[in-house]
Amino acid sequence: MAMKRAGVYAIRALCSSAKLTRQVHSTAGSKKIVGVFYKANEYAELNPNFVGTVERGLGIRDWLESQGHQYVVTDDKEGPDCELEKHLSDLHVLITTPFHPAYVTAERIKKAKNLQLLLTAGIGSDHIDLKAAAEAGLTVAEVTGSNVVSVAEDELMRILILVRNFLPGYHQVINGDWNVAGIAHRAYDLEGKTVGTIGAGRIGRLLLQRLKPFNCNLLYHDRIKIDPELENQTGAKFEEDLDAMLPKCDIIVLNTPLTEKTRGLLDKERISKLKKGVLIVNNARGALVDTQAVADACASGHIGGYSGDVWFPQPAPKDHPWRYMPNQAMTPHISGTTIDAQLRYAAGTKDMLDRYFKGEEFPLQNYIVKEGVLAPQYR
Amino acid sequence: MAMKRAGVYAIRALCSSAKLTRQVHSTAGSKKIVGVFYKANEYAELNPNFVGTVERGLGIRDWLESQGHQYVVTDDKEGPDCELEKHLSDLHVLITTPFHPAYVTAERIKKAKNLQLLLTAGIGSDHIDLKAAAEAGLTVAEVTGSNVVSVAEDELMRILILVRNFLPGYHQVINGDWNVAGIAHRAYDLEGKTVGTIGAGRIGRLLLQRLKPFNCNLLYHDRIKIDPELENQTGAKFEEDLDAMLPKCDIIVLNTPLTEKTRGLLDKERISKLKKGVLIVNNARGALVDTQAVADACASGHIGGYSGDVWFPQPAPKDHPWRYMPNQAMTPHISGTTIDAQLRYAAGTKDMLDRYFKGEEFPLQNYIVKEGVLAPQYR
Repeated sequence: MAMKRAGVYAIRALCSSAKLTRQVHSTAGSKKIVGVFYKANEYAELNPNFVGTVERGLGIRDWLESQGHQYVVTDDKEGPDCELEKHLSDLHVLITTPFHPAYVTAERIKKAKNLQLLLTAGIGSDHIDLKAAAEAGLTVAEVTGSNVVSVAEDELMRILILVRNFLPGYHQVINGDWNVAGIAHRAYDLEGKTVGTIGAGRIGRLLLQRLKPFNCNLLYHDRIKIDPELENQTGAKFEEDLDAMLPKCDIIVLNTPLTEKTRGLLDKERISKLKKGVLIVNNARGALVDTQAVADACASGHIGGYSGDVWFPQPAPKDHPWRYMPNQAMTPHISGTTIDAQLRYAAGTKDMLDRYFKGEEFPLQNYIVKEGVLAPQYR
Repeated sequence: MAMKRAGVYAIRALCSSAKLTRQVHSTAGSKKIVGVFYKANEYAELNPNFVGTVERGLGIRDWLESQGHQYVVTDDKEGPDCELEKHLSDLHVLITTPFHPAYVTAERIKKAKNLQLLLTAGIGSDHIDLKAAAEAGLTVAEVTGSNVVSVAEDELMRILILVRNFLPGYHQVINGDWNVAGIAHRAYDLEGKTVGTIGAGRIGRLLLQRLKPFNCNLLYHDRIKIDPELENQTGAKFEEDLDAMLPKCDIIVLNTPLTEKTRGLLDKERISKLKKGVLIVNNARGALVDTQAVADACASGHIGGYSGDVWFPQPAPKDHPWRYMPNQAMTPHISGTTIDAQLRYAAGTKDMLDRYFKGEEFPLQNYIVKEGVLAPQYR
């Protein structure tokens, strides 16, 4: 059965270099679970499946309470007096999302003495200090796969919005104008263009599959090659050297997790080497790129269009430069929280809680930190 | 060799029920060619490939003039005093486009005594009175295939924009807001939805191929079934009865030419039988749907979103109701006039002119009216 968290530190003191494995999953008894979601407000009643919200709390309250667990949900996550802070001292499980991220810092982890499990309802746990979570012997898990299709679809939409120059046309419509030339002079087909994805994990691969019938020249960079069957099916070419791939691309899509290695990956210098007029889609993480360098390159025209739903920080402040730069097609963080995705990550979160209560393992691919051990791609 | 146009009427008087075939293509000598395009204005110098404009005139001026032909280009096409009217009496060839349509009425055809050939640079010749053109023994031809990929790509973009509820998110960004719930409550994945296309001609089939990896339920209605290989490849199911197909669809795409049979196809009654919240994409022709019925259904929420680039008339007046209806994602008529499409339809128009000067046949699929005989789908 699982050790108490205090025990972890005791063991760690004895054998500090050894990695700990503890069955946090199997601790019995009533648990306190806190979920941090965005509020639906006036939209709560408009859709019965709008489960990823404070009002619906993933639809698991009755199920949790019927088993004797305590369930607190809030959207109040910032500052020392927020609702989340009040519960840190005695919660066992904290559920967060990338869409309204509760930043789980080392300091917060320290305060959360009973914390055993951090669940991300969705994909992307970079709002959690993973090193601190590992140090504390915690488990961090996501609902891997829950919204990969959602994000990949959204990326293809953004590619098309940029390459076909959709927004200037839409603006003409709402402004009472009609000037085809003002759109057409920089509207292109996607067909025949070179599209490169930085990262070909689950989302990147789904994007490549969806791009296949568009007859593009597809490139991908990753640590490892995708399996030959998929490479054959999509016709995508592996590019071992990122800096060799990038200048070939008409369109670049970011599909890599944010880690200390990838932070600021697309900086001023790398941008300066891209094709003039390059289009960039980033639904991965805002901090993968240098905010000001992107804004400057959009202003100069070196970047011909930038679209994504991720920012740093989130929510984006009113004066975030990406709100004002030309040729942007930005939205708030939304691609992974479609209604379909919410239903899937609510189900996946419930499944992991159920396994946690029963002392069972999670699906292997869900682990980001397993009982103090960081998954390989985050090391 | 070709008969003079006056001769057509003479023969027609003798055998009024017989269809005429005359080799309009092979008349020799210097021709007067008039092209009506949209103006590029300040955008003319921004892109060397911006050929579908008054300023560039398809890039064929030097070629035409070097062969002794006269070439006039204009965007001035409306009213009795417009530039186009001044040339009607002596032009031999009139080149028009669907993006800035010069309406070629029976009256204009009557005035154009020397007219032999009407070329549409692009696809869609409904701005021409085809019956009157046939009566006059003219040939009407398009650059079939020149922008089918362009339009199909654009349709998929619009499907994604609607299903994923892109525009409310974009509006939040430019308005300084951040409210994920305001977008997410009606944002969905395309995966698993039922998409039906009315028409599975060249564009419809390209759309089905591009939709295939999205794992939708694909339906199509047309006069005839697509070939079994493509049906198998896309998994699209044939629906013989349009009115049986429509209520099954989450998303409906119009891909049928405008003819007297299809005008007003999607009227108030048909709309009332669609699924509540249905999304509609129409890059085919504005007059395929009842303008006010669409606006009313968007206002009531029965239509959950409407996107397209075709209107009636074009340019859309400032008070066109589609500019103001909720959940629209409209643009001016643009999908078929990307830079890639312009290069293709400029080349295709030049090829037909070359064949016309040499007395050669056009590619068969380009004919809408061949020497007075209407192509089957327009009868």
